[in-house]
Amino acid sequence: MAQYSVASLERLIEQFERLPGIGHKTAARLAYYVLSMKESEAEKFADAILEAHKKIHYCKICCNLTDNEICSICEDERRDKSIICVVHDTRDVVAFEKTREFNATYHVLHGLLSPMNGCTPDMLHIKELLARLNNDEVKEVIMALDGTVEGEATAMYLSKLIKPLGIKVTRLAYGIPVGADLQYADEVTLSRSLDGRIEL
Amino acid sequence: MAQYSVASLERLIEQFERLPGIGHKTAARLAYYVLSMKESEAEKFADAILEAHKKIHYCKICCNLTDNEICSICEDERRDKSIICVVHDTRDVVAFEKTREFNATYHVLHGLLSPMNGCTPDMLHIKELLARLNNDEVKEVIMALDGTVEGEATAMYLSKLIKPLGIKVTRLAYGIPVGADLQYADEVTLSRSLDGRIEL
Repeated sequence: MAQYSVASLERLIEQFERLPGIGHKTAARLAYYVLSMKESEAEKFADAILEAHKKIHYCKICCNLTDNEICSICEDERRDKSIICVVHDTRDVVAFEKTREFNATYHVLHGLLSPMNGCTPDMLHIKELLARLNNDEVKEVIMALDGTVEGEATAMYLSKLIKPLGIKVTRLAYGIPVGADLQYADEVTLSRSLDGRIEL
Repeated sequence: MAQYSVASLERLIEQFERLPGIGHKTAARLAYYVLSMKESEAEKFADAILEAHKKIHYCKICCNLTDNEICSICEDERRDKSIICVVHDTRDVVAFEKTREFNATYHVLHGLLSPMNGCTPDMLHIKELLARLNNDEVKEVIMALDGTVEGEATAMYLSKLIKPLGIKVTRLAYGIPVGADLQYADEVTLSRSLDGRIEL
């Protein structure tokens, strides 16, 4: 008995399966949904994939994603250019922007130092960061990196490069999350939040 | 403070968000993954979407999906053409094919009768099914429809059309799933499985 299969459908399912967190069943569900779309909608979907790939690249200044030469944050004249917030990933920029409180600029490293995973300093966008520090405008660099071993190692590495330039280097506060139950906080976080206690 | 956004990225996220079961966060994760793909891989993905849409259509005989004129099942000479298994959706065909035990042909209705949702007989592929019954070859039509109100209504409707043609109409057995705990079976299923009990 010949196995029933439709080659183009199989190919589409395979493509969806390559996406992170999408297994075979979800991939099949998405592929069938794409088949049920109107032709014009499927074209829009395919175009969005190609267009995003063609148009989006790194901002010349901060290495954030943009479809212009310079991203809208670096271009914004009302932004405080004397503070640079160094982040791991472009998604972290989105997270900080959501606070609507941060009014300075970013620098996206696109990775964290991790010798185990073969991520060395030359693979991060550190050169571009140092180039920005060569003028007198920058007063502070905030290390807004993950609270992991890799994040801390990267922050230490960068601070050793930046401090000699006479620029203040800070890092995010460690502590208990707002709204969290104390009993669910791990002991490292708790002891860090004790160390960083603030007078009321 | 201008809101940071990248138009082409937003469009891609929006497109992913349209897929069933994909919320905003997952859509963003998938979109970022697409950005991280090689250009050639992104092109393959987009092509798969367009190609599936262009090439795949309904089999002229059984209304199953195919990229040829007639699907590989209807074309297969070793298949028993005297039995037609009527299913709701193309995915049901895949499910039956997985049993590797069914060696006859299918007919895909692409829907179930549901006056509440505005699904009327003329919206299902019933005409094509009746056309297949006009030769003497077909001996039996199996209603392999969902065990829902819509599935049963559709099966009743079709059997009233088909029985007068002198063709045997059957439906799938109701009963407890293989490997299931009796205590988790609902009472309707249990009483149906009692009705359909078989001598050992």
